[in-house]
Amino acid sequence: MKVSTKRGDTGTTSIYGNRTTKTSLVIEALGQLDSCIAECILLCTKWDSLSSTCKTIVEDLNCICAIIAGYSPITSFTDDRTSWLEITMDQDSLDESFKFIYPFNNEKIATINHLRTTVRTVERALFRLNDEQSVPQNILNYINRLSDFWFILGCKEYNKTSNKENIL
Amino acid sequence: MKVSTKRGDTGTTSIYGNRTTKTSLVIEALGQLDSCIAECILLCTKWDSLSSTCKTIVEDLNCICAIIAGYSPITSFTDDRTSWLEITMDQDSLDESFKFIYPFNNEKIATINHLRTTVRTVERALFRLNDEQSVPQNILNYINRLSDFWFILGCKEYNKTSNKENIL
Amino acid sequence: MKVSTKRGDTGTTSIYGNRTTKTSLVIEALGQLDSCIAECILLCTKWDSLSSTCKTIVEDLNCICAIIAGYSPITSFTDDRTSWLEITMDQDSLDESFKFIYPFNNEKIATINHLRTTVRTVERALFRLNDEQSVPQNILNYINRLSDFWFILGCKEYNKTSNKENIL
Repeated sequence: MKVSTKRGDTGTTSIYGNRTTKTSLVIEALGQLDSCIAECILLCTKWDSLSSTCKTIVEDLNCICAIIAGYSPITSFTDDRTSWLEITMDQDSLDESFKFIYPFNNEKIATINHLRTTVRTVERALFRLNDEQSVPQNILNYINRLSDFWFILGCKEYNKTSNKENIL
Repeated sequence: MKVSTKRGDTGTTSIYGNRTTKTSLVIEALGQLDSCIAECILLCTKWDSLSSTCKTIVEDLNCICAIIAGYSPITSFTDDRTSWLEITMDQDSLDESFKFIYPFNNEKIATINHLRTTVRTVERALFRLNDEQSVPQNILNYINRLSDFWFILGCKEYNKTSNKENIL
Repeated sequence: MKVSTKRGDTGTTSIYGNRTTKTSLVIEALGQLDSCIAECILLCTKWDSLSSTCKTIVEDLNCICAIIAGYSPITSFTDDRTSWLEITMDQDSLDESFKFIYPFNNEKIATINHLRTTVRTVERALFRLNDEQSVPQNILNYINRLSDFWFILGCKEYNKTSNKENIL
């Protein structure tokens, strides 16, 4: 089986059944999504308790990649996915006294926090792409909600810890 | 308490009391700073000996974010912060025989080295922003010195190790 | 010995014996290469079995940096390096039944997978630079092959594990 085709050496890659230049906004967005998925998988390998959440989100992000790359129809990603994020994060359960946390003593929360910033990077790449070719609104909604999701998950993890120092 | 406002779904975000597009250079710079802060916090969770240094730098970077985003006056970040970096790194204490190190066998130094490259990414984003709207010179000085700071800290960590292989 | 020259505070840096602006495509490409090298070194610190491979690749990437920055002649990087990647990855040894793997339960493969995406980011930066100033074709070939290399290495690591769940 051939993985390495060498066809990419000339600066193009195959999406939409066409060759597209690797400097295009769509390849940039797909590359950022790829990095974000990889970071999500890494998070999954480190904490079993996040495994099911990470797997679901990786599946969603892969579905988004397939749409952006033109392999899947827009209808294959639905508003239900964003609703799932909203229900799962359940932000109403957060204490009113909640403040932004710097998890200086908790590697799990710090890793989640870094992933949140990577999702933000994906979002910026998708909005740049959106200026050139329309990105489905429900994908933009999902990615915007996903950074909130990781933020709130970090807060909830924090609330579970006994060592509650390091709130700035 | 609401974290997730959904207002970002349309591709704008709130800074300077206005809505700004997520594709702007200022949001890119703030996003890169956010990622850099997250990596600095991660470093802090992994090595206790770096805790105080990391916390101070995260505070500095947050102060810079607040200025870039227009929430704090330019005067809230002073030249003292760069002086603190310079005094703390104390590069004159480095041995003359010093060479650039590839810390192939030391995860702590390798992690510091990666953070150094992320600071460089922030610096490039700030200079791009600076072409459009002036970034205070003392912020640019601080960020330039901060990559030197991590580099020199890596060298000093190396000097402390007994297993001194892997200098290229 | 002086590491910190402060000359970079004005937004330029020294390459080709000239001062170049930090917002240029060449500094962006060098910065992305620097981050990729740092991630490769980090991988090396974590798994001894990857040490020799990582060291060779870091040497190659440094050689590429020196050429891009104008310090070394183009002839200092040869097609042999790409051949070495191709021989080492030996993709023909992969099972025909092979599928793309999501290494949700293996931190080593997940770390390799993340590095693969970072190599892709370097590649995009090099092709952007190539639109402005010619990047040697054998460097572009090497970087394209390097992401395949990490992908195939991840697959082989997977084939070695007994816990073969999580193929999507």
